[in-house]
Amino acid sequence: MAIIGRGPAGLSAALNASIRNKNIIVFGNSPLDLTKSKRIDNYLGIPDINGKDLYNLFLKHTEKYNINFSKHRVREVYAMGDYFALTFDDKSIIEAVTVIVACGTQLKKDIKNEEKFVGKGIGYCATCDAALYKGKKVVIIGYNEESVSEANFINEIVRETIYVNMYKKDIDLNKDIKVINDIPVEFSGNNRAEKLILKQNEIEADGFFVIKESSKPERLVPSLKTEGSYIITNHKDMSTSIPGLFAAGDITGLPYQIMKAVGEGQVAALSAARYISGKNRIKK
Amino acid sequence: MAIIGRGPAGLSAALNASIRNKNIIVFGNSPLDLTKSKRIDNYLGIPDINGKDLYNLFLKHTEKYNINFSKHRVREVYAMGDYFALTFDDKSIIEAVTVIVACGTQLKKDIKNEEKFVGKGIGYCATCDAALYKGKKVVIIGYNEESVSEANFINEIVRETIYVNMYKKDIDLNKDIKVINDIPVEFSGNNRAEKLILKQNEIEADGFFVIKESSKPERLVPSLKTEGSYIITNHKDMSTSIPGLFAAGDITGLPYQIMKAVGEGQVAALSAARYISGKNRIKK
Repeated sequence: MAIIGRGPAGLSAALNASIRNKNIIVFGNSPLDLTKSKRIDNYLGIPDINGKDLYNLFLKHTEKYNINFSKHRVREVYAMGDYFALTFDDKSIIEAVTVIVACGTQLKKDIKNEEKFVGKGIGYCATCDAALYKGKKVVIIGYNEESVSEANFINEIVRETIYVNMYKKDIDLNKDIKVINDIPVEFSGNNRAEKLILKQNEIEADGFFVIKESSKPERLVPSLKTEGSYIITNHKDMSTSIPGLFAAGDITGLPYQIMKAVGEGQVAALSAARYISGKNRIKK
Repeated sequence: MAIIGRGPAGLSAALNASIRNKNIIVFGNSPLDLTKSKRIDNYLGIPDINGKDLYNLFLKHTEKYNINFSKHRVREVYAMGDYFALTFDDKSIIEAVTVIVACGTQLKKDIKNEEKFVGKGIGYCATCDAALYKGKKVVIIGYNEESVSEANFINEIVRETIYVNMYKKDIDLNKDIKVINDIPVEFSGNNRAEKLILKQNEIEADGFFVIKESSKPERLVPSLKTEGSYIITNHKDMSTSIPGLFAAGDITGLPYQIMKAVGEGQVAALSAARYISGKNRIKK
């Protein structure tokens, strides 16, 4: 069982599946929105706690069980009929019988025309597409730590790298990389993205990479039925339009609440465990 | 906001509605299935705890807020269009703008033909129907403390009372009342229940009362759409077939799990709070 997301929904799913003796791997990082929360008083049984401490209680609870954790970012999930193939930025692949998507929502809005030019000059993984831009000029729009290493990596291959800094003040970038502190507004171009227009600047380039925590669910799982930025989910068993693929937490829709997320994680885990048992019965 | 049920779903709903400054009353008793549970390890953040201690953490958390608790049993909920009327065994009535049904499920199975004869010699409230049986013979099938007081009460009015003891060893019954220690199997009769057949005995009587913790949801809320013993619920917002009436916890269906229940209680509370706000806007 592969669980994408290490927030409350993902950890709840991992805990419940683990009690049912499933072989589990959880992908993802700590959820920033939770761990930055100053005070939470509606997690029943644990009054008046800050997000970081609550999240640490969650992690400590799951530590008791044999759960594998990976900080690798799942790039795409392909439904192969009898199993799922999860791909990673380093081109490696793992297989899973069932997948629970609990990756949270993308709170940052897309940049105007981002959607239109995806695959046409705009990408989400510089490491993966670096070879395409050998000797060319690329722009990294960076929102997180990963974007820093992505920029440093691609800079060794391309002619010129520009880093639009949406992350934080002091970043450890290669000195060759030009840093722009400005807010992206829109992409422009004819058949492909040719220019990024920012509030104060414009940058022309051959390729643009938006490196942020999570991407839209239909980018993560091609052919998955979605509604806006949510996965269409049967909330009774947390199943989705793809058999064997379940969803839980903010990605299934409002309200963005911790208990809603842990409840859905639990239901998704039990459904996924049942799905595995069904597969095993058929094989026998 | 009236919340029926004081288990995890009901308390979660009360907590969340209370944070939103709603005027709340919670009806019901401690959930026996939870408080009797020896070990719970899948409530994320609180590892390895017994049911009683976990439930006490829940209660302690809600104590911080201004929530009214009542141990009175809600008999029926009537949708009056603009509000709900909740009736009680003592014939009193309270009104609520919105109701959350979180009363858990009826784990005890109905006695054979019980459903068939409801209102035709079989009832669930001896106090309410006592007058009908003046000078007659009644049987109380008692599963709880309330059944003892019901039996003592009706015994003052009827000619003969028989108490079928499904509750516990030592019960404080009026000496006139005959106690039968035997297991009910089925009711028989032509147009109405005339006889209770038990494993070892048969009892003919004019009226039979089954006094147990909760009754089927369609008995609690007439005209509510149900499926088997569950309330048909849109799990996305926990709404039911009656506008303004929400459901959460075991009563909405499997799995019977605490985190599922608290998650649903949270979502139901937010939906109910939104429903109240909508009503207030219309009034203004």
